[in-house]
Amino acid sequence: MDNYSTSRKVAVFLADGCEEIEALTVVDLLTRSGIPRTMVSINPTREVTSSHGVTITADTTVDQLPFDEYDMLVLPGGIPGTPNLEACSPLCDALKRFAASGKQIAAICAAPSILAHLGLLKDVKATCNPSFEDDLEQHGARLTWQPVTVYRNFITSQAMGTAIPFGLAIVTHYLGDRTATELRDKIKYRQ
Amino acid sequence: MDNYSTSRKVAVFLADGCEEIEALTVVDLLTRSGIPRTMVSINPTREVTSSHGVTITADTTVDQLPFDEYDMLVLPGGIPGTPNLEACSPLCDALKRFAASGKQIAAICAAPSILAHLGLLKDVKATCNPSFEDDLEQHGARLTWQPVTVYRNFITSQAMGTAIPFGLAIVTHYLGDRTATELRDKIKYRQ
Repeated sequence: MDNYSTSRKVAVFLADGCEEIEALTVVDLLTRSGIPRTMVSINPTREVTSSHGVTITADTTVDQLPFDEYDMLVLPGGIPGTPNLEACSPLCDALKRFAASGKQIAAICAAPSILAHLGLLKDVKATCNPSFEDDLEQHGARLTWQPVTVYRNFITSQAMGTAIPFGLAIVTHYLGDRTATELRDKIKYRQ
Repeated sequence: MDNYSTSRKVAVFLADGCEEIEALTVVDLLTRSGIPRTMVSINPTREVTSSHGVTITADTTVDQLPFDEYDMLVLPGGIPGTPNLEACSPLCDALKRFAASGKQIAAICAAPSILAHLGLLKDVKATCNPSFEDDLEQHGARLTWQPVTVYRNFITSQAMGTAIPFGLAIVTHYLGDRTATELRDKIKYRQ
């Protein structure tokens, strides 16, 4: 993987009640690939406690984040992590700016519903956790029911069990198929 | 999954440099299944920083752990997490006691090498990260080259990309195939 690199930066957002594997699998695969990534707490402090009771210390807090330096915003799911992310105004404002300017947005499990509610998924092919499919459809998304869907500047995915292909899709976006396939083989992911 | 439960407790060990997804996928799936689990830092404090720079706060530290109350010890891989676990005397002593008394031990990626070095894998069918296969064979293990191997009181697995089937094998051990299959379907894991 030494022949490929990117200086474009990815921000992964962490809220209390987020699904830790959906968040950290992306962090893991980006770190392995050398793609610059920042874990961003939406709390006033860097500590966040996941939906399964795991406390993680993020790299920074949302109020300190220079959004314009970033190329992609990543939203893990989990309850109440997803409504907590949706209640974060600086994040939602940035999502609207990113969507309008064609920058990248990735969301998994319940989190694509945030994009739907913001009106960003009209006529966008997308996937999400089955519990949120009606929500996406009511807001104009074109459901694919696939583990991962890459469409325009959106990468969406279904659930904790699709976190690896979700992360690999982000790696593919920055470094290409060959690098992502090498990484998949190295971690012994079969699918 | 409401019909099944267990009071048997699982300890997941965290060292600096451990592979966070290998550790936390087990924590995630056990928590979802209602199987009592404790994240145990082998540091003097509860804070541990993973091989990909994620700081996690464990539930307790190894010097506070009442090992005898536990039914299973789980070892994630990662470098230098694995040699750090192997340098932890209270843990290695407990692994030998657990093996001798037929209690459960689970290890993934590089971590089965710890069991091999302690002489616990002689004539035991096991799997591990390809980089450690020679090490296991030299210490008498019977390699399966499978994503997950359940044999006697040992559950072993290959790598970060097999962390979900590894966790599901632990759930199966305590709650049975049907519950594990329901969980696999719920998280949308396909394999």
